[in-house]
Amino acid sequence: METRDLALGIDIGGTTTSFGYVDREGRVLAEATIATEGSRPAQTLVPRLQARAREVLQGLDGARVVGVGVCAPNANQNTGTVEHAVNLAWDPVTDLRGLVRAAFDLPTEVSNDANAAALGEMLFGGAKGMKHFIVITLGTGLGSGLVANGRLLLGADGLAGELGHVLVQPGGRQCGCGRRGCLETYVSATGLCRTLFELLADSREPSALRAVPYRDLTAKMIYVAACAGDPVAREAFDRTARTLGQKLADAVAHTGPEAIFLFGGLAAAGDLLLGPAQAYMDEFMFPAYRGHVRLLPSGMESGSAAILGAAALAWNALAS
Amino acid sequence: METRDLALGIDIGGTTTSFGYVDREGRVLAEATIATEGSRPAQTLVPRLQARAREVLQGLDGARVVGVGVCAPNANQNTGTVEHAVNLAWDPVTDLRGLVRAAFDLPTEVSNDANAAALGEMLFGGAKGMKHFIVITLGTGLGSGLVANGRLLLGADGLAGELGHVLVQPGGRQCGCGRRGCLETYVSATGLCRTLFELLADSREPSALRAVPYRDLTAKMIYVAACAGDPVAREAFDRTARTLGQKLADAVAHTGPEAIFLFGGLAAAGDLLLGPAQAYMDEFMFPAYRGHVRLLPSGMESGSAAILGAAALAWNALAS
Repeated sequence: METRDLALGIDIGGTTTSFGYVDREGRVLAEATIATEGSRPAQTLVPRLQARAREVLQGLDGARVVGVGVCAPNANQNTGTVEHAVNLAWDPVTDLRGLVRAAFDLPTEVSNDANAAALGEMLFGGAKGMKHFIVITLGTGLGSGLVANGRLLLGADGLAGELGHVLVQPGGRQCGCGRRGCLETYVSATGLCRTLFELLADSREPSALRAVPYRDLTAKMIYVAACAGDPVAREAFDRTARTLGQKLADAVAHTGPEAIFLFGGLAAAGDLLLGPAQAYMDEFMFPAYRGHVRLLPSGMESGSAAILGAAALAWNALAS
Repeated sequence: METRDLALGIDIGGTTTSFGYVDREGRVLAEATIATEGSRPAQTLVPRLQARAREVLQGLDGARVVGVGVCAPNANQNTGTVEHAVNLAWDPVTDLRGLVRAAFDLPTEVSNDANAAALGEMLFGGAKGMKHFIVITLGTGLGSGLVANGRLLLGADGLAGELGHVLVQPGGRQCGCGRRGCLETYVSATGLCRTLFELLADSREPSALRAVPYRDLTAKMIYVAACAGDPVAREAFDRTARTLGQKLADAVAHTGPEAIFLFGGLAAAGDLLLGPAQAYMDEFMFPAYRGHVRLLPSGMESGSAAILGAAALAWNALAS
């Protein structure tokens, strides 16, 4: 019987860890989840993961696992370490790559979710064949993975591509990183909620969202309201798109990508965000680039994207 | 007798074209200049250049020329073309690489001055051994060359690394590119003059520069006044350093360099610009990078820097 080479892609989240076996073409042949138990050290997660992964592998006839890719919050791809991850009570610095490599005895790559998403997009998604592109992940925060000359931009310290923390406005909104005015305080699910509340305070327009307390407000509620024609919700999306477009124009001046992919919940807000952000980006862009850079939704299947991205880390390392 | 491999580095300016023969270690063994005669087509410059370069070469015993690097305004390194160069009345698009390659019958690279400066810094200057760094050229405008993973970032269209045109402020100062608010309208020799005039209008501080009309004002005059303690001139430098520091912090979030080099006239304004810009950059920087990125003066000899940069284009291409 023919053997099939597979990469094991592992996505470690604060609550749940998902993993799957992915072939070179990006087919997820089997997947499963376990609890992360993030309050316990990484040393207890890895053996549980290994045992469950072995069980799942037994269902795959003729499979040979050739590498492991792990995606974890705040992971540094250069060092393979996870440092100060907010939802994991791990040591300040955990050598995750070393732990996983020792357990599985396979080539192992570790990175954060945005870099994994970028490689997933390049190997299995909309960036196939592209040498220069950017992936923006929009969730609670804003992450980014930058690819230039066909390689991830990791920089000297493995920390390049932190577009969530470029500055929109000195002295602007307070950010979790300790500064003020970072892009992710404006463009992200929480950024959208903050903008909506600013607009509720600033304007006298009627809005269904005036009935919602801050702590209960979600980006989804703003989306639903905007689709129903709520003027404040629509304005909140427009401002978000404008800020995103402005800072993406700056990003284009840095790395000159062919395309920028939006990934994650907010990216699904189609015409409310993607279209206007493209128009604003072109407006703010250095004229020579105008019309050359497409803003696109991610081409990865959203259900398996995290596992695909993690597996792409392994496949990409094996290919280079 | 031993033969010595040399690259011919050519720097085409609006008025003067300089060239020199440079060895692999960055020694300029002979150099000369000719008039560019920019009102005539490039097809007339290249044969004049070739004739003069041949004469100069005859003075170098045992030399073998192995490649040519050409630095020209608005040159696109991907295509080898010069497009819409402001001070050259050339065709809208001139295949400069093709012309030079045909004339000299040697491997030829063409790029703009900021990219050439970046490669010069990498091969012969302060960035030796660095894989990730940025060079900012400060003159009438602001140019930049970005190196990541040991390679120039040229992007999909050969136009990456245009930090002169990242946006400081939507609707800000009018820029030559047709937009408003570009970095080079604030941070450059002309940007400094514009800031000085804004401050003269805004404040009531005494200043020797109140006697100078706008068209006569130079960055050098502001430098001299600042050194003499002129408060408005000092404030103009401080604002320039602040804007530069802010946008360099953004640049760091994109590419994560080890160091940023300042090159050109304004870069020589040492403690008035470099020191404060480093402090502002650290203040605006994502905390994880803070203290990791040095802002340095160029390590290239300023007299020969343009020829060294052009020669570095050739040496770099021959090495890869």
